[in-house]
Amino acid sequence: MKVAVVTSNANKAREVAAYFAGVLTVEHVPLACPEFRHADVGEIARGKAEFAYKTLSRPLIVDDTGLFVDALGGFPGPYAAYVHDTIGNAGVLKLMEGVEDRSARFETAIAFAREDGIRVFRGILPGTIVPPRGEEGFGYDPIFEHAGRTLAEIPLSEKSRISHRARALEAFRAWVEREAGDDRTVNMSKNE
Amino acid sequence: MKVAVVTSNANKAREVAAYFAGVLTVEHVPLACPEFRHADVGEIARGKAEFAYKTLSRPLIVDDTGLFVDALGGFPGPYAAYVHDTIGNAGVLKLMEGVEDRSARFETAIAFAREDGIRVFRGILPGTIVPPRGEEGFGYDPIFEHAGRTLAEIPLSEKSRISHRARALEAFRAWVEREAGDDRTVNMSKNE
Repeated sequence: MKVAVVTSNANKAREVAAYFAGVLTVEHVPLACPEFRHADVGEIARGKAEFAYKTLSRPLIVDDTGLFVDALGGFPGPYAAYVHDTIGNAGVLKLMEGVEDRSARFETAIAFAREDGIRVFRGILPGTIVPPRGEEGFGYDPIFEHAGRTLAEIPLSEKSRISHRARALEAFRAWVEREAGDDRTVNMSKNE
Repeated sequence: MKVAVVTSNANKAREVAAYFAGVLTVEHVPLACPEFRHADVGEIARGKAEFAYKTLSRPLIVDDTGLFVDALGGFPGPYAAYVHDTIGNAGVLKLMEGVEDRSARFETAIAFAREDGIRVFRGILPGTIVPPRGEEGFGYDPIFEHAGRTLAEIPLSEKSRISHRARALEAFRAWVEREAGDDRTVNMSKNE
């Protein structure tokens, strides 16, 4: 199967291509998709996939990622990028001053669209908000700790295996492989 | 001219209808519009108007509003509603602790779409971020001071005459009336 990765970020498309080498043929399509405002990244990804499928009429994936801090009612949520561009990590840490519950999660949703509909696959990385540590990565990585290290203390090659994004890709890949297996079974019974 | 007010908020549509009584015929259309992520409410409103016009094919307006705090790099910007739902006024005030520059602005953009294209009209209300005062209004009104009073200290009937939203409606109305005037001129010359 050939899948379009619809994103303005060529690096994302390359990452997906490497991840699915031998399983899917991946092509980068830099189409910007409008989205409905929603607190759930899965619903945002689904809406973008609907738009992209109407435009491109071919199998494709789009994704959306958010950071959800429990004590802040899910802030910054799907608007993590805009919030980071404006108040930054310093702003999030200021909001968390004196707050005991530090729990948060990163969540990526991948929406896969093709003729028979849209499926959403999620990857969640639980963690806590901490004072900044580490030099790797970008965005909120220095203040998001998972299993004892901040994401900025984890080498990129390792992060790309354990991240929320990796987990969503895994969920999608497991589904693709299961479906390929089902197809083989069907073909085999036909050939009996 | 008959204009559809495209919004999920029936109160907004009623407000526009009252404002344009005798000038425009206004009808509420509760269509949800997807939008491109953008830091500018004018560009967001323009994108929603394009979508709505493709769907409805008739003259319409949509709007978008943001709150931009200078010292916070424009935060919360077009995502003011989500930010208010999560960290609230208390969160914004916490971010402003110890910050000397309190200046901010509310901005509403109204996008008017019809066959010959899309026009954007803006209304800006400058102010400052202050500790909460007043019982009127909603959202950020208690912490946004304009000309000595917070928006929550201004009666609704007065607020709806001076607000960013009122200013954007005024700009639109001035254009509508100018155009009606031009049409009369054209018709008169034709009738000469």
